[in-house]
Amino acid sequence: MESLYPSWPQAARNAVAERDASIPADLRLPLDFIASYPAGSDVLNAAATSGLLSEKELQITDTSSDATAILSAIKNKDVTAVEVLTAFMKRAAIAHQLLCCLTQISFEEGLARAKELDDYYERTGELAGPLHGLPISVKDYMGLKGKRATGGFSGDLDRLISTENSPVNQILWDAGCVFYCKTNVPQSMMHLETKSFWGQTLNPHNTHLTSGGSSGGCGALVAFGGSPLSIGSDIGGSLRSPASCCGIYTLKPTTGRLPSNGLPGCGVVPGNDAILATCGPLARSSRDIVLFFDVVLKAQPWLQHMGLVPLPWKPENIKWTGKIRLGVMWDDGNVQPQPPVRRALKAMTEALKRTNKFDLVDYDPKFHKELVLMAQSLYFTDGGASVHARAAVTGEPLCHLTEWVISLPGVKDHTSHQLWELLLERDALRAKYYSHWNSQNIDVLLCPVQYGAAQPLQTTKYWGYTSAFNCADFPAAVFPTGLKASATLDPKDTEPREAWNEADAYCAAAYDPLLSNDAPLSLQLVSKRHADEVVMQALREIEKVLPLRD
Amino acid sequence: MESLYPSWPQAARNAVAERDASIPADLRLPLDFIASYPAGSDVLNAAATSGLLSEKELQITDTSSDATAILSAIKNKDVTAVEVLTAFMKRAAIAHQLLCCLTQISFEEGLARAKELDDYYERTGELAGPLHGLPISVKDYMGLKGKRATGGFSGDLDRLISTENSPVNQILWDAGCVFYCKTNVPQSMMHLETKSFWGQTLNPHNTHLTSGGSSGGCGALVAFGGSPLSIGSDIGGSLRSPASCCGIYTLKPTTGRLPSNGLPGCGVVPGNDAILATCGPLARSSRDIVLFFDVVLKAQPWLQHMGLVPLPWKPENIKWTGKIRLGVMWDDGNVQPQPPVRRALKAMTEALKRTNKFDLVDYDPKFHKELVLMAQSLYFTDGGASVHARAAVTGEPLCHLTEWVISLPGVKDHTSHQLWELLLERDALRAKYYSHWNSQNIDVLLCPVQYGAAQPLQTTKYWGYTSAFNCADFPAAVFPTGLKASATLDPKDTEPREAWNEADAYCAAAYDPLLSNDAPLSLQLVSKRHADEVVMQALREIEKVLPLRD
Repeated sequence: MESLYPSWPQAARNAVAERDASIPADLRLPLDFIASYPAGSDVLNAAATSGLLSEKELQITDTSSDATAILSAIKNKDVTAVEVLTAFMKRAAIAHQLLCCLTQISFEEGLARAKELDDYYERTGELAGPLHGLPISVKDYMGLKGKRATGGFSGDLDRLISTENSPVNQILWDAGCVFYCKTNVPQSMMHLETKSFWGQTLNPHNTHLTSGGSSGGCGALVAFGGSPLSIGSDIGGSLRSPASCCGIYTLKPTTGRLPSNGLPGCGVVPGNDAILATCGPLARSSRDIVLFFDVVLKAQPWLQHMGLVPLPWKPENIKWTGKIRLGVMWDDGNVQPQPPVRRALKAMTEALKRTNKFDLVDYDPKFHKELVLMAQSLYFTDGGASVHARAAVTGEPLCHLTEWVISLPGVKDHTSHQLWELLLERDALRAKYYSHWNSQNIDVLLCPVQYGAAQPLQTTKYWGYTSAFNCADFPAAVFPTGLKASATLDPKDTEPREAWNEADAYCAAAYDPLLSNDAPLSLQLVSKRHADEVVMQALREIEKVLPLRD
Repeated sequence: MESLYPSWPQAARNAVAERDASIPADLRLPLDFIASYPAGSDVLNAAATSGLLSEKELQITDTSSDATAILSAIKNKDVTAVEVLTAFMKRAAIAHQLLCCLTQISFEEGLARAKELDDYYERTGELAGPLHGLPISVKDYMGLKGKRATGGFSGDLDRLISTENSPVNQILWDAGCVFYCKTNVPQSMMHLETKSFWGQTLNPHNTHLTSGGSSGGCGALVAFGGSPLSIGSDIGGSLRSPASCCGIYTLKPTTGRLPSNGLPGCGVVPGNDAILATCGPLARSSRDIVLFFDVVLKAQPWLQHMGLVPLPWKPENIKWTGKIRLGVMWDDGNVQPQPPVRRALKAMTEALKRTNKFDLVDYDPKFHKELVLMAQSLYFTDGGASVHARAAVTGEPLCHLTEWVISLPGVKDHTSHQLWELLLERDALRAKYYSHWNSQNIDVLLCPVQYGAAQPLQTTKYWGYTSAFNCADFPAAVFPTGLKASATLDPKDTEPREAWNEADAYCAAAYDPLLSNDAPLSLQLVSKRHADEVVMQALREIEKVLPLRD
């Protein structure tokens, strides 16, 4: 696949050519096969129809399976690590050729590692660790030793070769995983879509639609079956948007629970700690999310890294004697969700009511508008100058969504004093929101992840349903309900409604039932700061009624 | 006592006059009594010689007793809360007239509260809480409902009347304590001494010397016996310096364990979160420090306040099966401690060696110089403009030590980008220091608190022994060894030594054995981030050999 930007700098085009040349010849798809999936296709069956995977390989990578099942199969010697990786390599190669989800491919290194692990198991009868043989893909931005790490700018290519694995990746490595590819990110990492000099990642359910972002390469790859577990990051929705768009799972944890990315040269805005990113997993099941946190936090990363809270992962400490108090936020008071999201949230609450295990109450979205505006102000406290500077390294053009995000209200350059005033406002707002949450007397909050299902490419423009919880630093999981957007069930609103504001008008107008058809419908589950385990334990209960069916 | 600065703004002089007028007439010391303690006196016996306190009141306030003992006496009905407060009021009034340690006096309100508590106990047979009847003094800067809160600028007087107790003070209040006075702070709160428009606080052991700062009003008051427990704060040594100078106890905890001061208008540099302050207790015994943390953290402040880590106070979880590995940092590689400090550290290590409970190793002070410089850079990232602006509110002059601290290397105004670069450097340095600490394989570190014992007034100029642990955010306790500086035992170095740098030359030259005579010799005990309980448990073991005697 050629770069989507032939006019872009040579460095960008070289990197893209190098990536595409690294797809093994025997895994390249015939042009007529690719052409059989025109824009707007559901490509999820392409692994099966490609003929590249054996029955066993299709079974290993089947998206109804998960990392936990794969690890169990390796342990039981039903499959070897080499077999598992071979299957995922094939499926990842197909995914990339249809969806443009990879940035760097290192299948050979992966195979060597898998072979070592197999030999070790054969020789000792012991697994190398709890993730023995699990193929893990990694967002381009996150450090893998010896690989480049870009934040979606071609100017990062030469500057940022990781000398070490990032702390989380090192823990996963020590636990026995196999790295084999890095995944696409948008330019500046600040789109809830995924388009950069590496290309534009598409949604496997419908290639007219975005995979979400900024961890959109991870999302598309996992949803297609090209990876059982992928490591991304989130500062405004970048784990949750792709999980939602692609119909998979994530937990954006409270910051400080997972070690930061270890890439000071490659943050969203390096050095800006006014609002913090966190890494996190994208996976096919909630138990895989729990597995990830269990493995990473058992390594006690706070003993090695500053800035972490010394909290082990203790879901078993969360028990409910009575019902789980579940708040429902129908909208955030700022932008009304599009019809498919409203239907999914309604169906979910109806299903939960029938279980008799939840006390459902309506949640007042007080301060959400302020949180969204505050997040916007905190991302680029230099007014976006650093974004322009990074693009200027190679002279690449700014993408439409990059331009947009640094032009939002609140984005401006700050003197030291202006910044301090902003941080005081931030802290005052956080305190007010914390009190408000406490006043609602709930354990968890169920709400939309985004204003709609996956949107048509390059149109995703309201971050509020996710960024509010970055500003508040609350943990938030995303899960697929099992429902899909439907042109039949989700017609455009006919009742005229006065728009709440410009963003609301935009999001309402942007809804096209035909374009969104078949996009997965996901929801977000939130709890307060450091209550990450509460989210996952409540999700366990919620999942008992999933998947929902129309 | 009149303001020390008759040329200062009317607002400052009014506040000082109002304070001094609020000392009850029957607690005013005769001028000839005050004159009997000329500059350079040890005033610790003044409560006894004043004739204002009964035998029982002297006993209640005796500095060999502590808060725990007082609480026990109240519980056992040996004394009432009113009796306790009356005794401390008297002693605090005497302390203030000799040492200038108070800023706001509210004895009547305190007595009303104490009476309510006595009535409650009488009526119900129950204590109001674990601090029932304990008089607590509070640094001027920290919010007490209805009181002014200044950061040592007269311009703060009208702006900053607290509408609520600060979060920590509210917890203490809910636990049954009695507030009765606020204590002096230096102008800008950024001296390790205590001189402001409120006056200059003196050291009760030797009034030629500083009480330390910025919580120097707390330190002098507690050491004199005018308060059993005082609440201060620390961003560069402001709890530890007065504890050291006055010969009492403190723990500067890891930031995020105690709720912040709740005074966004009155921080050192409000809104600057490049380096964080924490509040903390000044007390007469280590068990009182533990009591404070136990009470505050049992209230689970993280459920109410953002920015806190949800860690209960669990000293009982800290157990050593073998010896405690104790690092000894003889100097920080930047400034050699003055002779009395070197003697105290030597004596302490000799005493610990004899217990056979410690493995003592020399600690390499790697990165300490960098931490000290970094802290200097982080305090005033506006180049000190905000300090000038706050002084300008009423037109008060900058004190010598205020001028000095905003003129240190590294203090300069920053653009957003320059600030981000600085924060990246900070994080890289913290990571390096954390690794270094881990490489030393120790549980706790014993080291000087300051380059010397309490210094002659307005001369304290090197913060490195304390500020390094703010920059690293490591918990650090201070305790008195029982030794005192001695003109006989601690002669000036006769061996000529080449100074390591300008600060080292200054500190060496500043030592005057005669002036420092009888100043308490204290030491600092440190552990890594979040290991607050480790510090206090190790101190329990160390204390078994205290007090040291020459």
